[in-house]
Amino acid sequence: MVNIAVMGHGVVGSGVVEVILSHKEGVLRHAHEELNIKYVLDLKEFPDSPVADRFTKNFEDIIRDDSVQIVVEVMGGLNPAFDFVKRCLTAGKSVVTSNKELVAAKGAELLAVAKEHNANFMFEASVGGGIPIIRPIYQCLAANNVLEIAGILNGTTNFILTKMIDDHMSFQDALALAQKLGYAERNPSADVDGHDACRKICILAALAFGKHVYPEQVHTEGISNLTLADVAYANAWGGEIKLIGNVKMMDNGQIQIIVCPMLVPNSNLMANIDDVFNGIMVRGDATDEVLFYGKGAGKLPTASAVVADVIDCMKHVDARKYLFWEDNTDPDYVQNYLDNPVAMYVRVRVSDVEAERIRGLFGSINWLACDEAEEGELAFVTPKMAEREIRSKLAQLEEQGAEVKTTVRIADFS
Amino acid sequence: MVNIAVMGHGVVGSGVVEVILSHKEGVLRHAHEELNIKYVLDLKEFPDSPVADRFTKNFEDIIRDDSVQIVVEVMGGLNPAFDFVKRCLTAGKSVVTSNKELVAAKGAELLAVAKEHNANFMFEASVGGGIPIIRPIYQCLAANNVLEIAGILNGTTNFILTKMIDDHMSFQDALALAQKLGYAERNPSADVDGHDACRKICILAALAFGKHVYPEQVHTEGISNLTLADVAYANAWGGEIKLIGNVKMMDNGQIQIIVCPMLVPNSNLMANIDDVFNGIMVRGDATDEVLFYGKGAGKLPTASAVVADVIDCMKHVDARKYLFWEDNTDPDYVQNYLDNPVAMYVRVRVSDVEAERIRGLFGSINWLACDEAEEGELAFVTPKMAEREIRSKLAQLEEQGAEVKTTVRIADFS
Repeated sequence: MVNIAVMGHGVVGSGVVEVILSHKEGVLRHAHEELNIKYVLDLKEFPDSPVADRFTKNFEDIIRDDSVQIVVEVMGGLNPAFDFVKRCLTAGKSVVTSNKELVAAKGAELLAVAKEHNANFMFEASVGGGIPIIRPIYQCLAANNVLEIAGILNGTTNFILTKMIDDHMSFQDALALAQKLGYAERNPSADVDGHDACRKICILAALAFGKHVYPEQVHTEGISNLTLADVAYANAWGGEIKLIGNVKMMDNGQIQIIVCPMLVPNSNLMANIDDVFNGIMVRGDATDEVLFYGKGAGKLPTASAVVADVIDCMKHVDARKYLFWEDNTDPDYVQNYLDNPVAMYVRVRVSDVEAERIRGLFGSINWLACDEAEEGELAFVTPKMAEREIRSKLAQLEEQGAEVKTTVRIADFS
Repeated sequence: MVNIAVMGHGVVGSGVVEVILSHKEGVLRHAHEELNIKYVLDLKEFPDSPVADRFTKNFEDIIRDDSVQIVVEVMGGLNPAFDFVKRCLTAGKSVVTSNKELVAAKGAELLAVAKEHNANFMFEASVGGGIPIIRPIYQCLAANNVLEIAGILNGTTNFILTKMIDDHMSFQDALALAQKLGYAERNPSADVDGHDACRKICILAALAFGKHVYPEQVHTEGISNLTLADVAYANAWGGEIKLIGNVKMMDNGQIQIIVCPMLVPNSNLMANIDDVFNGIMVRGDATDEVLFYGKGAGKLPTASAVVADVIDCMKHVDARKYLFWEDNTDPDYVQNYLDNPVAMYVRVRVSDVEAERIRGLFGSINWLACDEAEEGELAFVTPKMAEREIRSKLAQLEEQGAEVKTTVRIADFS
């Protein structure tokens, strides 16, 4: 029998307890051992829980108990999660977490501590909820060099964009609906400003390329300034706007990494991923692209990913898994996003600036037209060039009195 | 250093050699050991191979060499592959195969031999080529009860259907093109008659539900009698025809399993999976549906899946992995497909039979119309009922002089 502790009894934590209790047979069949929840750590009380007698408010109960081999951290946030997890690993206990903020900020450090103390640190649930993605990248693609990852990594923003596209709701109305349905928090910034997606692409990039990427290193844009006009122009172009996390390895060993809305052509499967679903495309040199799709959040999907990690830890109590990446101390590892080559959708209020002037600046331009076009506005797609160049040309337009309303990068993953 | 032997130097076998040689660093990083190809077994000679000095025509060289810990079987077919693999496992060597025919016919027996001799038997490449699917189902979904699997499991037929749908090519012309491009064999029966897809859904069903399913137990229909009229009616209905392998667990412990063309609504991501791509949907009680997508065949994708298994074997030389399923001796484990509830698309040459008569037989009918309709033909979708009932009603129609041209089941996976 293996004893575990579950730290945190919120949505995911209560789901973990539920999945373990309702899948006893499957756990036994896979792990060949029984799994016992010895502690649940939470400051609140849950007298109706089937494990009500296991609750503690004191972390020391867990760290001091040598019979606890695996600790599940589903509290969220950096504090005290980081301190607790580090102490567990230092004590040789394996840790499973769904906490993307923790992994994105402290992954390299915690993996090193785990290695030093011969423990496992696992986090399948931190990206893509119930979609298997961490383990497939690490194991199944072990015989591949990953070249690129692109993903719809945040279900809340994908739901909002789907409502804007399919039901012509404004961003504000779609956000309000998402909040009403429980998909978005009262303070929606982590989702709509792209920070959640950023943490996830950082984790995937670290895993794929073996070096930590900190969220602060990633240029991140959200979706809050997109309008129904942009959605209509995207449709006229032949695609949909999606919030994408994208990382590419370059020949010189630097990576391009960005989180931002992108125009995805309808022919790409990613444009067909709607509502709260996530989709993650991994391109390897041998496999070519492989795509993983499913619900990227939710109590039971996320909890089942946590429990799958727990089972894997049970099978590797003695033999540590080799999941690992280095810290990243090279400020040049991430290429400045302004140097990334990109084609850009631009919507601009022209006032006195003439279309001919825009064409003169950018060369060949793909003009877009739609019924929702506002008087005095133009929309177009630039040729591909360094983003810095595009920004400089747009600045010139603004000097002449134009007002750039929206810019959206064109997806160039396959 | 771990020594391996590669049995078979065809498309996949030469790919395995290529991937191992070109990914030395990745293998080392993941397995923490070097991988050495000690033997390649093939009756032909390959003097230009970078491992030309490792070739042997004699299997006994491999079985007698105790330093060979892992054997890759990529010969294909049942004989002599089955005998060779069984002898390797009996000798305690782990075996990795891409041979779906072998796993579908002999999986339970070989897994039992592997267990008895403390060896691993792995076959990620047998389904979905380079798409990680075996390991995710087994590991990541360990905390789920799988309820259903549905997949586009054969790239050749999906390519043919895509050409029929998008380019209005006839089945024969599309098949000829697939053969010209190397996607289809000279004798295309294994693909177009559904046998290849059948083997794959058998393997997935065994893995998901823990009990072997033999291909002979699965009602299997191919795509060769589909016409452009069917494609046009499907379009009028709002979907596409796809060759689907589908298995569902029922409450009574029996499974429904079938391989056949199905009408998939456009709103389902599966309808958007085109050309030679595969897509496999796994529905678990906790994760809900998760979909895996990518190239389901090809030299390097398949080879990379084989090598990923080899790496996993290297990491589990002593600790056997718990991948296992039982043999199936219960003739009632698979429900007779005629008892499956299903809605059916039917195209019928009516002669003297009137539409009113059809409606009388089936109750509410969804009539389909399209420009390609032939004079004297009707097409409709029946309500959902046991397939046996539908067949009986269609037999009554034929008794009255109608001729049933095509029947295609309506997909009812989500």
